[in-house]
Amino acid sequence: MNAPIDPQFAARIRDSFARQQAMALIGASIGLVAPGVVEIVLPFRDDLTQQKGYVHGGIVGMIADSAAGYAAYSLMPAGGTLVTAEYKINLLAAATCGLVARGEVVKAGRTLTIARAEVYADDRTHIATMQQTLMMLPGRSDQRE
Amino acid sequence: MNAPIDPQFAARIRDSFARQQAMALIGASIGLVAPGVVEIVLPFRDDLTQQKGYVHGGIVGMIADSAAGYAAYSLMPAGGTLVTAEYKINLLAAATCGLVARGEVVKAGRTLTIARAEVYADDRTHIATMQQTLMMLPGRSDQRE
Amino acid sequence: MNAPIDPQFAARIRDSFARQQAMALIGASIGLVAPGVVEIVLPFRDDLTQQKGYVHGGIVGMIADSAAGYAAYSLMPAGGTLVTAEYKINLLAAATCGLVARGEVVKAGRTLTIARAEVYADDRTHIATMQQTLMMLPGRSDQRE
Amino acid sequence: MNAPIDPQFAARIRDSFARQQAMALIGASIGLVAPGVVEIVLPFRDDLTQQKGYVHGGIVGMIADSAAGYAAYSLMPAGGTLVTAEYKINLLAAATCGLVARGEVVKAGRTLTIARAEVYADDRTHIATMQQTLMMLPGRSDQRE
Repeated sequence: MNAPIDPQFAARIRDSFARQQAMALIGASIGLVAPGVVEIVLPFRDDLTQQKGYVHGGIVGMIADSAAGYAAYSLMPAGGTLVTAEYKINLLAAATCGLVARGEVVKAGRTLTIARAEVYADDRTHIATMQQTLMMLPGRSDQRE
Repeated sequence: MNAPIDPQFAARIRDSFARQQAMALIGASIGLVAPGVVEIVLPFRDDLTQQKGYVHGGIVGMIADSAAGYAAYSLMPAGGTLVTAEYKINLLAAATCGLVARGEVVKAGRTLTIARAEVYADDRTHIATMQQTLMMLPGRSDQRE
Repeated sequence: MNAPIDPQFAARIRDSFARQQAMALIGASIGLVAPGVVEIVLPFRDDLTQQKGYVHGGIVGMIADSAAGYAAYSLMPAGGTLVTAEYKINLLAAATCGLVARGEVVKAGRTLTIARAEVYADDRTHIATMQQTLMMLPGRSDQRE
Repeated sequence: MNAPIDPQFAARIRDSFARQQAMALIGASIGLVAPGVVEIVLPFRDDLTQQKGYVHGGIVGMIADSAAGYAAYSLMPAGGTLVTAEYKINLLAAATCGLVARGEVVKAGRTLTIARAEVYADDRTHIATMQQTLMMLPGRSDQRE
């Protein structure tokens, strides 16, 4: 069921991610790319923090949103794109070190795909858990129009 | 009911916001500060975008999270802090211009406060709507420990 | 923008609601029906409560889900249906009396509609606030197939 | 970490569940009870359905809310109670048969516990996935006051 339709899905995801300037801004890079599973790695930096020196909850949300979104994208046919309709994130612990967000598809659909992401710190602390709804746009370009 | 307990709430919020390095990174600044209502302003920049040139959904989430969190903070007594327990955001439209996130308290509680944020583009497009739960930490410092 | 496409929208909603056996089970009835706004009324009954005698949070979710869903349905053309993709509800206070859930459309779309609901007790206590995503199914019957 | 503090947790949960009149109304019963994991079983009935004959999404939310809530309750010390602060549920498929909701604790905390629930149909279709925040009330009675 989760077999990728497009054999070039990994190259397609890495190419799309490279065009996300916001990911470069925060220093995030893409890690594991597998059918229905994508990881995003974020080294700790002081300029990612909130007032108490922890990684900003919104930054945690950014990498969770992208990881789960690309997990959904991995199962799409080539020549399409998708948008995040909504996400909900619980912040479980304060983060003062590097993070990995692991996105996984819960249910891939033609119109909507449901995905999740778990964010862990380098010391294995569970930082956040996220649930997300994505809208598939099969005939639309993933590039700037 | 929403009268601020601390008459210095506006100064306290501006001081806390100034210590959020993640807000400086994305170029966000604080706008309106009133009891139970805080706005955050984000000018458009190319390095805030995702692969299609729209402001990244996670960046939209960041300013919504901060605006609603400071709205909650405005109603707290001095000498405390809070953390975001969770937020849920619906992305309503793609953003290709500057944004304002307006956070408002729905219900202020001793342990939990519920807040909302609406994000609008400069052209008045409704970009996002967010619902958030914050945990109040009355005796804890808002500074790096 | 929120003008109903179908002039018979109110009759269509009341007819659909009457086919919701789960609403009859809990004793809910439909109140206000206007373009983009629908209210559902739930008198208090002991058999709607959880272990402490408050209305069960899931029952509060049921009427919020239906109120917001019918608010979305009010703006659809005739001959279609919709399904709830997801909802998120914050329970703000315990309810020990009758409730009214007021659903309102935030953004009506061709594929997805975003709606909200506020639930109030008879004594005006704010009981819950909900945010919801609905998937529009324009060519599909609202009846049992 | 998930070892129950109260050796009588299973009896305590079954006793609390038996006082939930709303669960009796819909015909739900409690199944598996283990530390941090609780299942709720719901046979199909026509009076649980919405206008198309599927189990009402709010009913699905009810059993998911209760299953995850009791999963959290299983890890609490005796003599306390808890309330659902919020939950977010994605409805993945229409249900026309019996359901099982399996709640599991993601992170147990002193003030907040985060839990999840998965709802499956008798034919193993994945019906819904839920994420929930509960507020622990250690010194408060779980009974009607």
